[in-house]
Amino acid sequence: MLSADHQKLYALEMGIDTHQEPVVFMRADCNVCKAEGFTANARIQVVADGRSIIATLNVVNTNVLPKNHIGFSVIAWQRLDLQPNDLVHVRHAPTLTSMSAVRKKVYGHQLSAKELTAIIADISAHRYSDIEIASFLTACAGDRLNEQEILALTQAMVACGQKLSWSDHQPIFDKHCIGGLPGNRATPIIIAIVSAAGLIIPKTSSRAITSPAGTADTMEVLTRVNLTLEEMRQVVAHTHGCLAWGGAVNLSPADDIMIRIERTLDLDSEGQLIASVLSKKIAAGSTHVLIDLPVGATAKVRTEQQAQRLIQLFEQVGAASGLVVRCVITDGSQAVGWGVGPVEEARDVLAVLKNLPEAPQDLRDRALFLAANLLSMAHNKPIEQARLEAEEILSSQRAWQQFKMICEAQGGLKLPLPIAEYQKTMTAQKSGVLVSMDNRRVARLAKLAGAPFSPVAGLRLAVKIGDIIQQDQILLTLFAASKGELAYAEAYYSSHLDMLLIQ
Amino acid sequence: MLSADHQKLYALEMGIDTHQEPVVFMRADCNVCKAEGFTANARIQVVADGRSIIATLNVVNTNVLPKNHIGFSVIAWQRLDLQPNDLVHVRHAPTLTSMSAVRKKVYGHQLSAKELTAIIADISAHRYSDIEIASFLTACAGDRLNEQEILALTQAMVACGQKLSWSDHQPIFDKHCIGGLPGNRATPIIIAIVSAAGLIIPKTSSRAITSPAGTADTMEVLTRVNLTLEEMRQVVAHTHGCLAWGGAVNLSPADDIMIRIERTLDLDSEGQLIASVLSKKIAAGSTHVLIDLPVGATAKVRTEQQAQRLIQLFEQVGAASGLVVRCVITDGSQAVGWGVGPVEEARDVLAVLKNLPEAPQDLRDRALFLAANLLSMAHNKPIEQARLEAEEILSSQRAWQQFKMICEAQGGLKLPLPIAEYQKTMTAQKSGVLVSMDNRRVARLAKLAGAPFSPVAGLRLAVKIGDIIQQDQILLTLFAASKGELAYAEAYYSSHLDMLLIQ
Repeated sequence: MLSADHQKLYALEMGIDTHQEPVVFMRADCNVCKAEGFTANARIQVVADGRSIIATLNVVNTNVLPKNHIGFSVIAWQRLDLQPNDLVHVRHAPTLTSMSAVRKKVYGHQLSAKELTAIIADISAHRYSDIEIASFLTACAGDRLNEQEILALTQAMVACGQKLSWSDHQPIFDKHCIGGLPGNRATPIIIAIVSAAGLIIPKTSSRAITSPAGTADTMEVLTRVNLTLEEMRQVVAHTHGCLAWGGAVNLSPADDIMIRIERTLDLDSEGQLIASVLSKKIAAGSTHVLIDLPVGATAKVRTEQQAQRLIQLFEQVGAASGLVVRCVITDGSQAVGWGVGPVEEARDVLAVLKNLPEAPQDLRDRALFLAANLLSMAHNKPIEQARLEAEEILSSQRAWQQFKMICEAQGGLKLPLPIAEYQKTMTAQKSGVLVSMDNRRVARLAKLAGAPFSPVAGLRLAVKIGDIIQQDQILLTLFAASKGELAYAEAYYSSHLDMLLIQ
Repeated sequence: MLSADHQKLYALEMGIDTHQEPVVFMRADCNVCKAEGFTANARIQVVADGRSIIATLNVVNTNVLPKNHIGFSVIAWQRLDLQPNDLVHVRHAPTLTSMSAVRKKVYGHQLSAKELTAIIADISAHRYSDIEIASFLTACAGDRLNEQEILALTQAMVACGQKLSWSDHQPIFDKHCIGGLPGNRATPIIIAIVSAAGLIIPKTSSRAITSPAGTADTMEVLTRVNLTLEEMRQVVAHTHGCLAWGGAVNLSPADDIMIRIERTLDLDSEGQLIASVLSKKIAAGSTHVLIDLPVGATAKVRTEQQAQRLIQLFEQVGAASGLVVRCVITDGSQAVGWGVGPVEEARDVLAVLKNLPEAPQDLRDRALFLAANLLSMAHNKPIEQARLEAEEILSSQRAWQQFKMICEAQGGLKLPLPIAEYQKTMTAQKSGVLVSMDNRRVARLAKLAGAPFSPVAGLRLAVKIGDIIQQDQILLTLFAASKGELAYAEAYYSSHLDMLLIQ
């Protein structure tokens, strides 16, 4: 009855970008709107030729939309795969039964695997509104998920996406850094070293969540990263490694949707973190995973105790999922390398790979330490011996040759690096010693300058903790792609001078 | 620099109703958009002639908006108080520092009065996006706020709204029901009784949050409820009471904003509940408040234990705020009266006030019990004696005369009641005894039929728990203002027949 022809509407693309939340537009005087009793912000189901989406309704004045038409935001139009004037019909969105489970979690109860699976299936099918996702993420934030729930969440995320499989008989390696350190771009160097040593490491990375750059953002400066699964297979068959963006292969679509809201709310959740990391590793077909946890007062993990709790969860949930997981704790007191932001981090990566004199020593050391851990896991050899092997591969330019080969296989190495149109140096207001660095504020500064959305945006540090600073000495250079962003970053820096604390 | 004239844009009302969240629309190729580095869904500040709002950005195609123009949703246009082609300028929304406090709460820490005040001030100034409000509400849901936080939240809500004051020397009464019982519309009867007895009771009520009707929705069927403060004063001066909608006098604007999101998420929060109720009572200038807590398996308060915890919080937070609070526990096992939905509940209210034979006995008893408690509080007399007084006022038609006088003072009694265009009776599938009623499903059924947005929508029960039911006997009648809603409610009823459990 609800799909009777006289209740159908003609589809019109409104050209309005509502980001990930699908929105449809209906006239207040529309018969269908009145018959169904729709009000502004109602959640409705739109059906076209058997396909359907859930969308949020915006009611519009009669002059915005012709009679008997329904407007679609960009994402709603794409998801429903419409052509202009396609006939669609609409109804109230079906009751979202999994929201009862979200409420159960909000009130502090444990969720069953079945309940978490239902929530994740609904989220990955785009049935949740942004505020519903925000509520779910908030309810799971901090340490509110226990080990069983995290395992169930991990498996639910794997279940709703694509799963890759590689050779059946060879171990598949992966690494992940918990993040929180601006400029920490060791991954491209590590992949080059260990794949040169013969390990199979088909690396998929995410874009930035709350940081100024993710590995995918930095690699995108240097080569193509949105590889299809088939392209990834070819690159790995040829080079043993790859450096692709995970989102293009749809490994954990629910995670990609949730990360967008987590980014906006700037929330951390232990359970979401473990599930997000491990679900992508499992879906990517990994068997051996190295997890790097930088610990520092302003890093994502602030204390040794918090790190130990995460390590325990990673190992337990990993083991229950059939993964070999090794966790290492690293120094998280300050930014790594000199550059922060996609292009500036790529500059540091290239300097280390090419063994240039200006290469940041801390980034080099970190990459070698982590590569050594992977080699040690792979060949069951002592870490000291693995470290010498990694060092030899890097110093001999074999890692650089390997990196170029991977980039060529992904579509070519894009050089030279672009340069930001707007730059400004910030200098020390007094002399002294740089005693601490606020990673969060440095990251925020780079984001205000436009990173990662503008790849050239960010900053380049000129100092490290312990350096003796002279008044008027350059502390950092800001880079931006627009005047507004440069001014905004500069204003933020000026009102938070203690992000680089000189005493 | 950011307000230089060449960066200004011409304002255009887009005629798009985005409900409470202000949205602005900018062209992707707009110089200001590019210069500021705005992306879809960014939060931006829009300034016009000294006034400013924070809004969410939707980026639009070039054909949707003329060059150098910026579009506004209905609410954004209203809040910024614009005229067509007013010049406005835009910048990144300032960092919302109170969101750090929200995150602190998300992670389970206690918030200080200062932090809660900052959050509530930002929410009431419309600086939070919907997902930020959703996160705050979720973080405070269940029992996550302690007594100190609830007190601080209450006072913060009072501080950001208007505060009424009445006579300095006379006690000002109020009552509140925690809700959860469909059809429970005792308030209009109680106000009529106790104001006839001389108590000053300037009642402001809310609209429905998650129920099919609030007292304001039902009273709106009978008279004008959106009174200004001055109008309320006149009505109270004349009659000792009023039955107004609280939102029109801006008593707790933050609460009104949050309730909209709570409604969507269907969340309950002990702390938000106490703060929401008491802040409105304090702001309304009350000195003596009666709180009714219906307890039942499917009521809002499910156990005696939960009720006792709420009572303790109400009394403690009330006392700390200078209020005399009395709490009473009532039966919450089933719907009250016969009607559910604004018009059908008004029908029951009128029947009780007029002492008609069809008046629902349970609604009458409940109203008398609560009125007696108010009279007992006021005159410090035993409850039995107060009950006799209340009974006399109701039976003698004095309450009905009083109710008519209040409605006349508010703008006139609107009679006869309207009737829904679409109706359908639901009959028993088997014989037996009605052993239980699921309040939540009955409420949901009335909401699916269109209540409270369509005042005539809802349902009328024909049975009570304990009744002996014959097969094919009418159990209830559904009322709707549209065919779609009637069909939707019918489908829900058919798939949840056990909401009226016959055994």
